[in-house]
Amino acid sequence: MSDRIAILTLSCPDRPGIVAAVSSLLFETGCTIRDAQQFDDLETGRFFMRVVFERLDESRSHAEITEAFGTLAERFAMDFTLREQHAKKRVMLLVSKFDHCLADLIYRWRIGELPMEIAGIVSNHGRDSIASTDIGDLPFHHLPITRQTKMEQEARIWQLVQESGTDLVVLARYMQVLSDGLSAKLLGRCINIHHSFLPGFKGAKPYHQAHERGVKLIGATAHYVTPDLDEGPIIEQDVERISHRDTPDALVRKGRDIERRVLARAVLQHLEDRVVLNGKKTVVFTD
Amino acid sequence: MSDRIAILTLSCPDRPGIVAAVSSLLFETGCTIRDAQQFDDLETGRFFMRVVFERLDESRSHAEITEAFGTLAERFAMDFTLREQHAKKRVMLLVSKFDHCLADLIYRWRIGELPMEIAGIVSNHGRDSIASTDIGDLPFHHLPITRQTKMEQEARIWQLVQESGTDLVVLARYMQVLSDGLSAKLLGRCINIHHSFLPGFKGAKPYHQAHERGVKLIGATAHYVTPDLDEGPIIEQDVERISHRDTPDALVRKGRDIERRVLARAVLQHLEDRVVLNGKKTVVFTD
Amino acid sequence: MSDRIAILTLSCPDRPGIVAAVSSLLFETGCTIRDAQQFDDLETGRFFMRVVFERLDESRSHAEITEAFGTLAERFAMDFTLREQHAKKRVMLLVSKFDHCLADLIYRWRIGELPMEIAGIVSNHGRDSIASTDIGDLPFHHLPITRQTKMEQEARIWQLVQESGTDLVVLARYMQVLSDGLSAKLLGRCINIHHSFLPGFKGAKPYHQAHERGVKLIGATAHYVTPDLDEGPIIEQDVERISHRDTPDALVRKGRDIERRVLARAVLQHLEDRVVLNGKKTVVFTD
Amino acid sequence: MSDRIAILTLSCPDRPGIVAAVSSLLFETGCTIRDAQQFDDLETGRFFMRVVFERLDESRSHAEITEAFGTLAERFAMDFTLREQHAKKRVMLLVSKFDHCLADLIYRWRIGELPMEIAGIVSNHGRDSIASTDIGDLPFHHLPITRQTKMEQEARIWQLVQESGTDLVVLARYMQVLSDGLSAKLLGRCINIHHSFLPGFKGAKPYHQAHERGVKLIGATAHYVTPDLDEGPIIEQDVERISHRDTPDALVRKGRDIERRVLARAVLQHLEDRVVLNGKKTVVFTD
Repeated sequence: MSDRIAILTLSCPDRPGIVAAVSSLLFETGCTIRDAQQFDDLETGRFFMRVVFERLDESRSHAEITEAFGTLAERFAMDFTLREQHAKKRVMLLVSKFDHCLADLIYRWRIGELPMEIAGIVSNHGRDSIASTDIGDLPFHHLPITRQTKMEQEARIWQLVQESGTDLVVLARYMQVLSDGLSAKLLGRCINIHHSFLPGFKGAKPYHQAHERGVKLIGATAHYVTPDLDEGPIIEQDVERISHRDTPDALVRKGRDIERRVLARAVLQHLEDRVVLNGKKTVVFTD
Repeated sequence: MSDRIAILTLSCPDRPGIVAAVSSLLFETGCTIRDAQQFDDLETGRFFMRVVFERLDESRSHAEITEAFGTLAERFAMDFTLREQHAKKRVMLLVSKFDHCLADLIYRWRIGELPMEIAGIVSNHGRDSIASTDIGDLPFHHLPITRQTKMEQEARIWQLVQESGTDLVVLARYMQVLSDGLSAKLLGRCINIHHSFLPGFKGAKPYHQAHERGVKLIGATAHYVTPDLDEGPIIEQDVERISHRDTPDALVRKGRDIERRVLARAVLQHLEDRVVLNGKKTVVFTD
Repeated sequence: MSDRIAILTLSCPDRPGIVAAVSSLLFETGCTIRDAQQFDDLETGRFFMRVVFERLDESRSHAEITEAFGTLAERFAMDFTLREQHAKKRVMLLVSKFDHCLADLIYRWRIGELPMEIAGIVSNHGRDSIASTDIGDLPFHHLPITRQTKMEQEARIWQLVQESGTDLVVLARYMQVLSDGLSAKLLGRCINIHHSFLPGFKGAKPYHQAHERGVKLIGATAHYVTPDLDEGPIIEQDVERISHRDTPDALVRKGRDIERRVLARAVLQHLEDRVVLNGKKTVVFTD
Repeated sequence: MSDRIAILTLSCPDRPGIVAAVSSLLFETGCTIRDAQQFDDLETGRFFMRVVFERLDESRSHAEITEAFGTLAERFAMDFTLREQHAKKRVMLLVSKFDHCLADLIYRWRIGELPMEIAGIVSNHGRDSIASTDIGDLPFHHLPITRQTKMEQEARIWQLVQESGTDLVVLARYMQVLSDGLSAKLLGRCINIHHSFLPGFKGAKPYHQAHERGVKLIGATAHYVTPDLDEGPIIEQDVERISHRDTPDALVRKGRDIERRVLARAVLQHLEDRVVLNGKKTVVFTD
């Protein structure tokens, strides 16, 4: 794969000429478009685009194109990201006692499936809690939390995020609710995984509730964490079929499978800059 | 197929010897078991069974076996149903303006997929409302309803159910909530179809709400109607994947597909005596 | 919905500047892009695009823009289609004895889900064979076929296609294999539906073979008909889970459900100009 | 969970009285049935049953009941297995270079999801090939293979199976075809995982072939290994949706996900004695 590939995402108020302007700029700076997807939200009048392009003209640097694009972005009032594909995002993994999502993400990273660098693992429990996961020599931070120390613990997480240059925080079954303050700081770059049912349930022991209610499907939702919403903008969801024979334990087991694959898909979409926030929801330019 | 096939369903408090008693009785009355499924609800201590058997001994009548089974049922405090397979259930279809489920059920009935007799079609709107559906010479009853006439309208429905020997009422997108009284009368023999989402939504225009929330899956639930619950015991559920590109109209369209296939499956399960009520939920002995 | 919406699809050898050229032309002729998707086949070096645009400038006619686009298309050696959205395609439905797909397509058309005009229904069997389907006053052509009369029968089909201005032929469980000659004439505008299994089976009674083989999934494939291939470019596929309990009859029943929804989706994709041929496969710009 | 639970599976020619005989024996020996499923293959006239029961009468040993059941089994010409639930099966894992299934099975075993003992890991490649998997101190056997040494290598595998008391061999992406001889020895206790497509493909690089063919679904099949068949009795299958955007690499990535979950489900079904061979196919008594 060429090391001169870059990924652009943008959103802005829709108006005629955006695609023409973007594609002309790329053409004039010696780039060729490898993939492009766009979406026009007719309700909000907002326009979304993801472009993968290659710099054919070796004399042009990524910085140069970024600068040229900055001027264009100003003209159209665009929010945008522009990243060279080889510059992997740095990811911090937060976990509590259930490590199936953590183990899965680490395995996928090891075999090269998730293009990321792991900045570290944070748990509110000790390393013994995730004994089934081989974390190798990845930095592990035990940050216990109580009602009294939540503020300090979150301050420590935030410090780690900054010091390690973390681009994305993944709550891989981290069983603490982030404060509004930390959620706000991590807006659009913190992904959580959550069981989901039809109909939904509030409160503790959701799989037991689902069992009591006799649902025939169980599912999971990966979403961005936000301060205001119960559950932020949804990135990915999936379900599995169950039956009256499934005990609550069997639901928990099947739930693990759904949770880890939904979270892994959401993380991959984010790492490849395929997800763009659109108010309370997302635009996901799938592969 | 033999015309001496019968289907038995039963539920009772679990205790040792039930299967032995049932299978011995069938053996001694000259019957052979063609299919049997059972389920032991360890939480409630209740036992569920469905048996399909054939009378090999021609000298025994269905009535005779039913009587023999009645004695056994008393001994074990069983709720049971025992029906000859060729005795099709009579079904009343209720509909409002959206006729996709109605058209689908009627087509499946015509090609012999749903083993039932259609006792009639009831709508709170005129026959024009379901103009896209070919109802042939099936009895059609226009029973308009207002807040003031709900009681009378439901009394008329109940009268039709009784007069026509209806075994099952299907709410095929009938947009009126049945009163507690009528729900109670139809307990365990009235099936409704309902959109479902992860997470759930209350209130009007659910597909529009789902669109606003940015869900990635939409679904439907078929359930028995009950007086007390928002949504009664679930029989069948399914979902489809959607994306940010789906407009509310597209969701409604995809929803129609899910609704009709979930309802048709639930009705078929009921017609074949595969569904047994278990408190707030169901045991479904699938094929 | 505006009646000045048009849909453009194109494919051509990839080279820098295509998107810029297309979007600039639309901008300059007073059009705004409502939706655009593109795809770059890196293996073949071929570029594919679908653009939905609206003529904001009322003084410009569709013909004018088509002409302007023709010049551009020549420059880039594009294959393209350009259609006003309100100009519905005309569809001919071919059927044999199983009418579940036919009935489904007609119902979807009646409720406005499939934006098409039905040019007629052709069957190699008499109208009685599809008695479960309400075809209303749609033109019905009984064109029986034997080994000896295949050429004449196909000539008659082709004549009907031409006379009726048919844009798309749908083989809705039409159980005759089209000759190479007719397949070639209908290239890219004739869709067939086909059962599919993992692993695949050749020959007669496929659901019985699937039963014997003990598969746990059955499926269906909708594809364009081609002269050379066993099964042409695939548009859509889906599967359902089955078990050892499913008899061949149950497989046929479940197969009907998959066949009709896979075919309906493929037809809708085609009607909305979402499918572009790419050699032996398709690019499907899904909604 | 009680440690007096046992699982019985049986198959025999169907005839009246089997269920009565089995359930009476269990009743008379002081056992109660916790779960029972049965299946009557009407085509072959063969009967299948799985019973989970608990010894309520502490004075009865498992050996005693096994002996009593042996007499019954002889009378009905039954093939049967009877295992105490707490007696976990011993499993040998075979792998080559792709370790996603291996890593997944080991993780599921560590967290207690797969009730088994791992007898060892065999690879035709060195331990470096599976460096992404944490195998802890599980016995690892490097058994390289060439065309010339296949017989010796398989003899060594068979020796390991016998010495370690292995009940089940899992080919977790082991890329060697077992000889007919070894397949025959392992009949019904060797599970393989295999990519699957609609339509199917033979030969090398299947995901590349699937890409070239433009399929819209890819899948995997877990099956028992047999000497005579290309692919033995199927235990479990699943698929995922793909699009024209998926490169062969993306198909391989998505394929890994399907392969590991299909294999894990099949292994769990086998470990819980839910799978009974039925000629070229299986009866799977799902939970």
